[in-house]
Order: sequence, then structure tokens, then C-alpha cells
Amino acid sequence: MAVRLGKQTIALEAPVSIVNTATVVGTKESEGPLAPYFDVHLNDAEWNEETWEKSESKMQREAAKLAIRKAGMEPGNIDCAFAGDLLNQCISSGFSARELEIPYYGLYGACSTMIEGLSLGAISIDGGGFDRTIAVASSHFCTAERQYRTPLEYGGQRTPTAQWTVTGAGAAVLEKRQFPPYITHITTGKVIDFGVTDPNNMGGAMAPAAIDTLKAHFRDTKRSPKNYDLILTGDLGKVGREIVIDMMTAGGFDMEQNYNDTGCMIYDFETQDVHAGGSGCGCVAVTLCGYVFEMMKKGELNDVLILGTGALLSPTSSLQGESVPGIAHAISLSTTPGGGKNGLY
Amino acid sequence: MAVRLGKQTIALEAPVSIVNTATVVGTKESEGPLAPYFDVHLNDAEWNEETWEKSESKMQREAAKLAIRKAGMEPGNIDCAFAGDLLNQCISSGFSARELEIPYYGLYGACSTMIEGLSLGAISIDGGGFDRTIAVASSHFCTAERQYRTPLEYGGQRTPTAQWTVTGAGAAVLEKRQFPPYITHITTGKVIDFGVTDPNNMGGAMAPAAIDTLKAHFRDTKRSPKNYDLILTGDLGKVGREIVIDMMTAGGFDMEQNYNDTGCMIYDFETQDVHAGGSGCGCVAVTLCGYVFEMMKKGELNDVLILGTGALLSPTSSLQGESVPGIAHAISLSTTPGGGKNGLY
Repeated sequence: MAVRLGKQTIALEAPVSIVNTATVVGTKESEGPLAPYFDVHLNDAEWNEETWEKSESKMQREAAKLAIRKAGMEPGNIDCAFAGDLLNQCISSGFSARELEIPYYGLYGACSTMIEGLSLGAISIDGGGFDRTIAVASSHFCTAERQYRTPLEYGGQRTPTAQWTVTGAGAAVLEKRQFPPYITHITTGKVIDFGVTDPNNMGGAMAPAAIDTLKAHFRDTKRSPKNYDLILTGDLGKVGREIVIDMMTAGGFDMEQNYNDTGCMIYDFETQDVHAGGSGCGCVAVTLCGYVFEMMKKGELNDVLILGTGALLSPTSSLQGESVPGIAHAISLSTTPGGGKNGLY
Repeated sequence: MAVRLGKQTIALEAPVSIVNTATVVGTKESEGPLAPYFDVHLNDAEWNEETWEKSESKMQREAAKLAIRKAGMEPGNIDCAFAGDLLNQCISSGFSARELEIPYYGLYGACSTMIEGLSLGAISIDGGGFDRTIAVASSHFCTAERQYRTPLEYGGQRTPTAQWTVTGAGAAVLEKRQFPPYITHITTGKVIDFGVTDPNNMGGAMAPAAIDTLKAHFRDTKRSPKNYDLILTGDLGKVGREIVIDMMTAGGFDMEQNYNDTGCMIYDFETQDVHAGGSGCGCVAVTLCGYVFEMMKKGELNDVLILGTGALLSPTSSLQGESVPGIAHAISLSTTPGGGKNGLY
């Protein structure tokens, strides 16, 4: 059963395992520092599809199929898929789910989607509703640019705070098993808006939501940053990451030692021209399903807190003068079912 | 605890109640046959907001606040909001959740969103993760027309199969209580695509998904249509409703007596020019939160099966030649916690 801690956190007494994961990434991600952790590396943005949108949907579908195969299962073994993406009406996920033929709940949490999918999957497995779920999320540089910004051919100049949308899809299969890593805690975020109106500074817009959820998590669990080997946000980039460090330090939380952001990890700032770093649903999805999962399987990381951070804007809301609200959902992962050295509560 | 029935259905042994609901509707809905069941009737499409998008977000927020108040609670008593809408990046829900300050999971299930939100809320309350949740969904004729079709000022002619997007928002508060109506069963749908490529015939495109979920529900629960006082889909309109009756009858299910579609109930086909009927997330949301809830409180309906049906297309997918995939999620409602005369399983 789930146990409520404080206002926003759930602890899972019976362990829900991430049984296996899979990742598909584009060319730029294949040249970045996390490349060795990814499963499928594309040679171009199309992957033999007519449009980038169909290519993104294929990435999501193939990531899901590979994760299910690596988990030793068939799609028919999965009770429910929780999936989402950044495109209007979440078409990457909808068309992917059409091919998978798995009961499907569509999510929209912007770049928090992967963590939302893992949270809802773990909650529903814990309650006995489902035996096995899969969480899937994707983004694609080309589909995101033309939908949110300008046509790629236009070659618009990017601001220093702009982030580079990751071309990538991650998928993770969940089941109640004695099999690390385990999802031990879920902290559900609120929509937080500090009034940033620049849609090219999403790291700055999302940072207050990440800070709010981090503080809620530490308050609810009575933990502190030192309970974790690694605390990750995904994806605030350089700008948002610095705000988190500054504001958390000011609030008495020492995040200097073990905090990073997936948007700062997936590309090499020296050799890859990505301005403030990576972004997109795919960024935290592939970093979690690639790097974090493998490091936890090896036991090199034992306790990880990972936040998905989403900017809940649309081009329409920005043109109508609205600011950019952010949201952040967190999950704790541990190689020990009872939450390891930290205990459950 | 939840009990799995067959492949796609969950039965809830401990009752989750719809404690209270609220609805906000536009002018056309206030002139339709269900008008007496709605709480707030707007006098225009703007509701003192500068844009239709802000107006839709306000409708969702006010519906949520009113449902919480009618349930005798404060927003701070609600552990999680599950909400969604039809707009790009679900901005009606995101901006509404910003004001409510309730932990928030964003959903995208097109017109199935309200049932998805009730399903996930009931599953997570049943498992002990949350004590109280709220499900919210909205649509607005003006925001939907300009996003999916043509500018309103253009005055494009509508095809006979076209449906009229409902201007409305519905909200429902869930909690474990001895308080009818209860959510007793949840059937999660798959994405089904029979190859309809006409985005103006969404009833036809969604009907196969509704049929697939209806058959899954009857197969999993060993029930038949006669176990229900009312079976509702929302929203297939006239065209989709006829396909459901034809195909279910051909499959040996007698749906002539007690089946209707919310898109065929919310407007008067004689006096209101709505072609194939109502549509939009708001259609099933306000019909459920208005008419169905009140009829069950009065005991005039005791066992209701209600399906939310969504068309998972975008203008981009249609322009790229894709067909229109559909999805349908179902919940059983009963005035008796154990599922009434039908039993739980």
C-alpha cells in the first residue's frame, strides 16, 4: 500500500521495480557525453519516415517495444502505457500507442511527462490496478522547432538562454518485483509561475517549480540532499540549474555536491553548440532510462532523486501575453526496496 | 484494493465516491435540453476575459472551485488534480491549475479526458496514494474552432458529419466514502484506428474505439448492456452513435433500449443547428457532472456505464495524410458500493 507523507509525497511500502528500459536518440545526442548509455542511435532526423512527426512517433514506438523485449515480455503483457510528448495533441504518443495495442492513458506534462508516467504507473501497480505498466516520452528537435518557434529553414538566431530540444525517446517497464532499481517515493508538483514571460528562457521559468517540489519532497520525507547520491532535474539547463543551486542554498539545502541537470549532462558545452543545454521530454527520459538506470544496475548509484520539470506554455499563451508556468514531479529511486540507508520514512 | 478483471478492467472493492460536481456552460448549452442540470450559465463566450483561451481556463478553474466548495472542502484538501483540455499544450488546464495551487497531473485524452481523470483519480485513491482528487475537463467552441479548423470570422461551411464543440467545463471531487454514486469499475481503452481520414467525421473515427472498449468491458465483467440503466458514450454524435448501435447489435449486444451519446443529448437537434451533435472534452464532462450525477443522487438512475471517447488527431497529422485514431475509456457508476444488483464480479 501507499503511505502518504506530508502534503505531496507518497511512499511505496511494496517495491515497484523499473524492470528494464530502452532509449532511441538522434545524431547530436550520439555525439554527446551520455552516448555510451543509449540503445539505438539514429543516423539522421528522419529514420526513413516521410515527416519528422512520424519519425518521432516511430522513435517512441521502437523505444517502447525494445524496453518490453529487454524486460523479457511481449506488448500483450503490459496492462497500461502512460505516454506523452510535446507535440500538439500529443500525436507522437497517440500514433505510437495505435501500433503497440496496449491500453493507453495519454499525458501532458511538457518535459515532466516521463516522471509523471513513472509516478502514475507506480501508483497504479502499487494499488493492484495494473501488474505491469510502461512509461514512454519523446521529443524531437525538428518537430519542436517548427511547432514552437520558427521553421528550421528560416535559421532564426537563438538567444543565450535558449535550450536545444533533445531528439530522443525513453521507455521504462514497471512491475512489482525484487529487482532494483525501485521507485520508493513520488512527490507530485504544483503549477508554479514566477512571471517569466520570455519563452526562450524556459530554464528560468521552470526553476521555481523545481525548487518548490524539491522543498516539498525534503519537507514531506524529512530527508535532505545528503540522503541522495545524485539529485537530478530534467531539464533546466545551465540557467535554471544555477537558479536552483542559488535558491536551495539560500533555503539551507546544500545542493553543490550531488546535484545536476539532465540538460547540462546530455551535450558537451565545449564542442556542441547548444547554448543553455538540452531540453524536451526526451532529455530526462533518455538520461533516466540510459545513464541513471545503468549506473543503478551497476550499483554505482544507490539513491537517486529525479525531477521532471515542464514549462506549461503554448505559442498561443505567450502571444496573448501570458507568463510561463512551470511544474516539477519527483520520484526517488533506490537499489534497496525499503529505501536503502534512508529507510522509507 | 483493486481487482483485475480480464485484460482491461479494474473493479474497486472499496468504494470511491463522486462526492460532488460542478459545471460551467456557454450560451448554446444553456438553451439545450440539459440546461436545468448545469450550475453556471455564461452570457457570452468571453466571461470578461480578453481572449477565449483565458475564458476557457477560467471556466475550468471556476468549475473546480465550485465542485470543491459543494463538496464542503477547500482547494488545500485536494491531494491531486487530474485535468486536461483540447488546446495545444493543454493551456486551459495548466493555467487553471496555477491558480488552484493543487498538485497537478496533466492529461491528454482528447474528449476522453474527463473519464481518464476520474479513472486515474479513483485508482490512486483506491491504492491509498491520495485521499481526495478532482477530475476536470473543458472545451470551448471558439478556442477549438480557431485551433482545429478555421478562424470564426471566416464562416466556413460545416459538413453534415461535423459536430459542435461544447463550451463547458465539468469538475468532480472523488473520495473514499459511503456516499453514492460510486465508481465501481474502470476499463482502460486501446487506441483503435479504422482508417477514417476525414477530420470532419470524428464520430465515425471514434466509434470503433467505443465499440472495442464496450466489448472489452462486457467481456471482462461478464456483464451485458441490460446490467445498466443507462450506457453513455461522449461524444460520438449522431453518426458515431448509429455505428455503435449497428455494430454492437451485429455483435449480439442489445443496445437499442438504454444507450445514448452525450453529443446527442446536450443540444436540441430540432431547434439548434449543430449538425451531427455536440463534441469536445466539455460535452461528456458537463453531462456526467450535471445530468448523470443528479439523476444518480435522486436514485432515478442506479447503474450507469459511461465512456469518454477521444479522437487523437492534430491538424498536422491530418495534413500529413494520417487517419484519425480513436480511444475510449469507460467507468461504471453505481448507487450501491458493491455494484448494486450486478455485484462487483
